[in-house]
Amino acid sequence: MKMSKMFFTTMKETPSDAEITSHILMMRAGLIKKTASGIYNYMPLGLKTIKKIENIVREEMNRAGGQEILCSAIIPSELIEESGRWSLYGDEMFRLKDRHSRDFCLGPTHEEVFTDIIRNEIKTYKQLPINIYQIQTKYRDERRPRFGIMRAREFVMKDAYSFDRDFEGQDSSFQNMYDAYNKIFERCGLEFKAVEADSGAIGGVGSVEFMVKSEVGEDAVVFCSNCDYGANLEKAQAIVQEHIGEDKKIIEKIHTPAIRSIEELCDFFSCDGAKFAKTLIYKADDKTVAVILRGDREANEIKIKNAIGTVIDFDMADEETVKAVTGAPVGFAGPVGIKTDILLIDQEIANGFNFITGANEEDYHIANVNYPEDFDGVVGDFRNVEEGEACPVCGSPITIARGIEVGHIFKLGTRYSEAMNCNFTDENGKINPMVMGCYGIGITRTIAAIIEQYNDEFGIKWPRQIAPFEIAVVPVMTKDEDQLKAAEKIYTQLMDLGYDVILDDRNERAGVKFKDIDLIGIPVRITIGKKLKEGKVELKLRTESESTDITLDELYPKIENLMKTL
Amino acid sequence: MKMSKMFFTTMKETPSDAEITSHILMMRAGLIKKTASGIYNYMPLGLKTIKKIENIVREEMNRAGGQEILCSAIIPSELIEESGRWSLYGDEMFRLKDRHSRDFCLGPTHEEVFTDIIRNEIKTYKQLPINIYQIQTKYRDERRPRFGIMRAREFVMKDAYSFDRDFEGQDSSFQNMYDAYNKIFERCGLEFKAVEADSGAIGGVGSVEFMVKSEVGEDAVVFCSNCDYGANLEKAQAIVQEHIGEDKKIIEKIHTPAIRSIEELCDFFSCDGAKFAKTLIYKADDKTVAVILRGDREANEIKIKNAIGTVIDFDMADEETVKAVTGAPVGFAGPVGIKTDILLIDQEIANGFNFITGANEEDYHIANVNYPEDFDGVVGDFRNVEEGEACPVCGSPITIARGIEVGHIFKLGTRYSEAMNCNFTDENGKINPMVMGCYGIGITRTIAAIIEQYNDEFGIKWPRQIAPFEIAVVPVMTKDEDQLKAAEKIYTQLMDLGYDVILDDRNERAGVKFKDIDLIGIPVRITIGKKLKEGKVELKLRTESESTDITLDELYPKIENLMKTL
Repeated sequence: MKMSKMFFTTMKETPSDAEITSHILMMRAGLIKKTASGIYNYMPLGLKTIKKIENIVREEMNRAGGQEILCSAIIPSELIEESGRWSLYGDEMFRLKDRHSRDFCLGPTHEEVFTDIIRNEIKTYKQLPINIYQIQTKYRDERRPRFGIMRAREFVMKDAYSFDRDFEGQDSSFQNMYDAYNKIFERCGLEFKAVEADSGAIGGVGSVEFMVKSEVGEDAVVFCSNCDYGANLEKAQAIVQEHIGEDKKIIEKIHTPAIRSIEELCDFFSCDGAKFAKTLIYKADDKTVAVILRGDREANEIKIKNAIGTVIDFDMADEETVKAVTGAPVGFAGPVGIKTDILLIDQEIANGFNFITGANEEDYHIANVNYPEDFDGVVGDFRNVEEGEACPVCGSPITIARGIEVGHIFKLGTRYSEAMNCNFTDENGKINPMVMGCYGIGITRTIAAIIEQYNDEFGIKWPRQIAPFEIAVVPVMTKDEDQLKAAEKIYTQLMDLGYDVILDDRNERAGVKFKDIDLIGIPVRITIGKKLKEGKVELKLRTESESTDITLDELYPKIENLMKTL
Repeated sequence: MKMSKMFFTTMKETPSDAEITSHILMMRAGLIKKTASGIYNYMPLGLKTIKKIENIVREEMNRAGGQEILCSAIIPSELIEESGRWSLYGDEMFRLKDRHSRDFCLGPTHEEVFTDIIRNEIKTYKQLPINIYQIQTKYRDERRPRFGIMRAREFVMKDAYSFDRDFEGQDSSFQNMYDAYNKIFERCGLEFKAVEADSGAIGGVGSVEFMVKSEVGEDAVVFCSNCDYGANLEKAQAIVQEHIGEDKKIIEKIHTPAIRSIEELCDFFSCDGAKFAKTLIYKADDKTVAVILRGDREANEIKIKNAIGTVIDFDMADEETVKAVTGAPVGFAGPVGIKTDILLIDQEIANGFNFITGANEEDYHIANVNYPEDFDGVVGDFRNVEEGEACPVCGSPITIARGIEVGHIFKLGTRYSEAMNCNFTDENGKINPMVMGCYGIGITRTIAAIIEQYNDEFGIKWPRQIAPFEIAVVPVMTKDEDQLKAAEKIYTQLMDLGYDVILDDRNERAGVKFKDIDLIGIPVRITIGKKLKEGKVELKLRTESESTDITLDELYPKIENLMKTL
């Protein structure tokens, strides 16, 4: 491609709504243009990058035995209703009606569609296992689209679905995809970690997220400092520390006039948050839920929701509800005598002693509250883990970092196949539901993640395999005929050798060209300047600040060697 | 690809809702699966075919200087409102709201989006001309989706848009695309013709459709039997035949009790339809329109609408309206004294003599009605041409055939650039609107069109360049180890030679395999059977009924030669 002909505009200024590096650089390098909040158009350089990632994904998926199909983005409501997700999905799903007022959605994922295809086509165990995938545009009406294509409302996704005859088959399909995903993200040049995750709205029995470490990541990821353990914060298991040597004391009601918050209580009782059992009250659809946690802990709403079961609307209870279940104003809730439909007790509380709690009475708290003597409920892990706590695998201290989720693989079990009658006949003529897995990669988000890991103050530093062009050939003075001719010759020869090359034949100052080539992040730059008279050109890597002079004879072997290392 | 591993099911029966060959064969060969009316999923073989066409389109578009981008399928209403199309587009446009109740549509085409991108990025004449395109999924809520992917509600389209500084530039960009389209459809192996067409809802000043000749085509296409002239029936120009030697007679009112239809009138007056001037009454939004045509002619609603100007709702008038404008019941309308807002007179009427028309009075007609003596209005071409009429270019008889529209190129002029302020600065600092063109190819419809031209009673007969696989290697007895080994070796070697090969290693009878290979339309079949012992295999072309024996030594050179001819 000749840059003088390329549809390509860069920006010097940082766009006002861009907060993170990848968003800023994608806008500045002209890779994307915004159409509406969370909706972007991909310009030639951006699309070339998408295609490169798509090809890596396609190659590895095919190698792993996946077969590519392409499904409709619009899905009739009847299909989504079969799995129950039509009502489970809230505002995040774009819904529309056709001219006959029939309901459709824009597919946020395609479990139902793939399940429908398979139940119609696959009848016997002989046709299993199967793994089919698509690379297709997905739609999610995010509450808060942001960070450019990192959290967009329309995005390109690879979604694959595996169908097996049993759970062992599912495990093997899952492992197969796990391995393929590792290869894909390695080929993308990413520093990433596969971590345990919650299955979320898709449902299922096990899931792993592929997280790219990044300060701007929207997810908190828990790592062990010693072993391989990693998990999304939503999922990371809290370990109960044993409390020994304390006796359970007698419950005691204390007058605490207008003392409501944990801070005020700490002051009043001269002790730290760990001594208190705080009571959080939620509304889960039409049920009330109280969760009892240590005063210094953070509730984990995913763990709480998973304990309740299927929940559509979930939120903190309003003042009125709090009064109704506690019989007291907000600030004095406690587990003893509370009247919620569900009472969840964090294991730390169940294993601890003599907590201070609200008395469910205005201006009163109770000391020396103990489980199960004073209250009863479901005991479990309902809190976020914290930096420095013990790893659930090896006990070493954990660390918490930010991550960008670029891939997510799920074991779905028979969640969809049972609901949708996706069955097969086995050797004995018995009809069984298939066991499914689903596997997603955010293609466009992966671009953003790569830029977050590959950039400097001058712009993007693409890994070669993702770069829209591998080599830029830049004549310093386009008006100098010798320089332009030499540049064109090198450009043509490199293309003939199979490289993806761009020729910056624009009639601009060398400084402007270099800045643009750096901004759009081309890994190798060959500059043709004054030294051409001595038969030399300049070779510069985007990752290095210095260039080296090189004779035209040495150029092609040097490039060939260089490319093996990039 | 090994067929035993391929996700692939064929059907013996003709699906009940499939009316035309391409739809039947695409369903039977398992290329597509229906999700809802007019909405399909593409299975592996179908998707491979799409990709092959996409690649041909991409190569020729790039060669013609086009640059690929990718735009969002969902478009905010504000953009479409800028061109006025938000209200012009009726039910055919899928509309939806996001969680904040903002209006969006699923793009039926992308004029506004591309114009928006260009007005933001292109500022001066130096950056023009430019041609950008995308290969992307489009949505149109067709009133009557049918014929499989021929008229679907979701389809893959290549849409390109050119931006020039002036009308000469536009003409040159248009010609450039015209040439590229010819190459594309030639490479697809199609028998097609480029014909003049109406610009329709997109608007503009000139348009050409690429029509594939086919009996199942939904468009009527007019061809000249002698010269190159071709036009869509909607557009094809009617030539006025001169009437000489007749004198205008005196108008005469005739009692015609209960004689209403042209047939009844022909009987009553003992003459043919050409003697009558029929009066058709329409409602065009809030206006009434009368169109005066010869009794034996068919109205052309496109020509009529173009004469009226911008019209959203257009339909035959109801009985009440007819009574209001004629003062008589339906069946007695005539041009003399009619009270419509607009009166359109076909040129044949204006150039003819002494017509019989309705009298706008119950049970009366008038004879010897003449223009302009007895009525006045806008004279023009408002009818369909008929087989055998004179070609508007050379006067030879025309023929009318059915065609499938696979491509459509438009000169848009400044229709969008003026409405949307898509301007550039010229050498003199003057600001001008860009002059635009738009160019579409229905990628998925092209597949259907190819199948309509390439099939027989056994299935599809793909042209090699479009076929999902070029060569099928079929061991007659998969259980015969020698045969399977030989087949696998040939399969591998052909793939190494760069061919797209499928190995039918299924444990099925040879007859079943042959039928499937024929159905899915693989151009070349290599069968490994009993003669393997003599070092021979069978070579068969899909287009021929007989196979030839060939030694293994001869096989590869033979294939190489063969492929040059396919």
